[in-house]
Amino acid sequence: MSETNTPIRPGRLVEYCDGETLLEGYVVVPQPEASPRACVVLAHDWSGLTEPTLRLAERYAALGYVCFAIDAYGKRVRGDPVGDNTHLMAPLMKDRDLLQRRLLAGYAAAGRITAVDSARMAAVGYCFGGLCALDLARRGAPNLKAVVSFHGGLQAPDHQERTRIDASILLLHGWSDPIVPPSDVLAIAEELTRAEAEWQLHAYGHAQHAFTFEDARFPDLGIAYDSRASDRSWRAMRQHLVMALDQ
Amino acid sequence: MSETNTPIRPGRLVEYCDGETLLEGYVVVPQPEASPRACVVLAHDWSGLTEPTLRLAERYAALGYVCFAIDAYGKRVRGDPVGDNTHLMAPLMKDRDLLQRRLLAGYAAAGRITAVDSARMAAVGYCFGGLCALDLARRGAPNLKAVVSFHGGLQAPDHQERTRIDASILLLHGWSDPIVPPSDVLAIAEELTRAEAEWQLHAYGHAQHAFTFEDARFPDLGIAYDSRASDRSWRAMRQHLVMALDQ
Repeated sequence: MSETNTPIRPGRLVEYCDGETLLEGYVVVPQPEASPRACVVLAHDWSGLTEPTLRLAERYAALGYVCFAIDAYGKRVRGDPVGDNTHLMAPLMKDRDLLQRRLLAGYAAAGRITAVDSARMAAVGYCFGGLCALDLARRGAPNLKAVVSFHGGLQAPDHQERTRIDASILLLHGWSDPIVPPSDVLAIAEELTRAEAEWQLHAYGHAQHAFTFEDARFPDLGIAYDSRASDRSWRAMRQHLVMALDQ
Repeated sequence: MSETNTPIRPGRLVEYCDGETLLEGYVVVPQPEASPRACVVLAHDWSGLTEPTLRLAERYAALGYVCFAIDAYGKRVRGDPVGDNTHLMAPLMKDRDLLQRRLLAGYAAAGRITAVDSARMAAVGYCFGGLCALDLARRGAPNLKAVVSFHGGLQAPDHQERTRIDASILLLHGWSDPIVPPSDVLAIAEELTRAEAEWQLHAYGHAQHAFTFEDARFPDLGIAYDSRASDRSWRAMRQHLVMALDQ
């Protein structure tokens, strides 16, 4: 008898390594698996590769992309989707070079998936994952055509060397996000302009941190779902990926 | 024999008054003129009701809206579409109350057009006209559902009384616009948030002032056409008007 609480997943888990560290991502390949497809590399929020990220990967695959949800923490290292995950995220935020190596390992694993056309890659992410998607662009991940950050962290690493960003960047930002204040928006606008990146920012009035997450219900902390901003951002992302990957 | 340089216009000029001042707008009504349609009130750039604004009015009408291009300067007071028009704009920027009365007179004239459903109104504008469209929202123009500013001035009047803005606002902004610096963006974000307006900002990296105007060719002055930002902004405007007026 099957357990009714375990959903049947359309994707599969994939192991890969960053040096000695074993990581585990989740790939969803749209059917039919005829010719190679563009790939969306999905970077998880601070809770790691938990249920919400698995569901998101399936939504991206439903758009016709292979989606590979990468893992920044390590196989079976999972946090609490609605709790505090500082202990997982903070070490990687303190060592951005380590974080970026982890991300690049995931990005490379995505490119090795048979169903993927590794010449047409995008990176998307939510909250901490938005920062991760941007870091892939900052590190010059090969053939990265587009990045979309949903209510993501925007801060550049302290000692960033790369001077040019080739990916087309879309920042989807809640203006009332207390975790990502206007000063961070000004800083990344300057960074991306200096890096000659093709970029745009969509800022949504009154929207707070995590505005696309239906379970985010802490408006007093500035963390809250906003259906209008969520819908707008999803539409903007689709447009951005179509322009960068399908044309 | 007709003069070949005079285009045959699909619209017509309409006189109206602000007190003693005679003004002249340009209205374009989509065919067929069956039932009343939503209206886009178009505010001209600093050159006044010149050729580029007439053409824009026709583009808005082609979307299915009645478009009324209002006049802030006075009948036959026209500037140079590619020259310096400070002498026309500055007096109204110095007397925002006068400007706003002029705008409200045009807005009221739009509502009196037979083909217009005056319950479904929007205001759009370019450069100086973007500021004018925002000022209609600031002054609480009745039934104003949506405002779209293309590379518009964002500064609030010095002594603004109204505290609530009901129109849904879309700001389309070139981040490298030297005439509208980031400090103005921060200020209007705060203003609109405080006014409880439903708002969003789309900022385009590297785009300068007047980015939708094909004749703008002064990149050294920060005034230049940008086809990508122009296309993106037109698409965003359409989406915004459909959401606010057609649903």
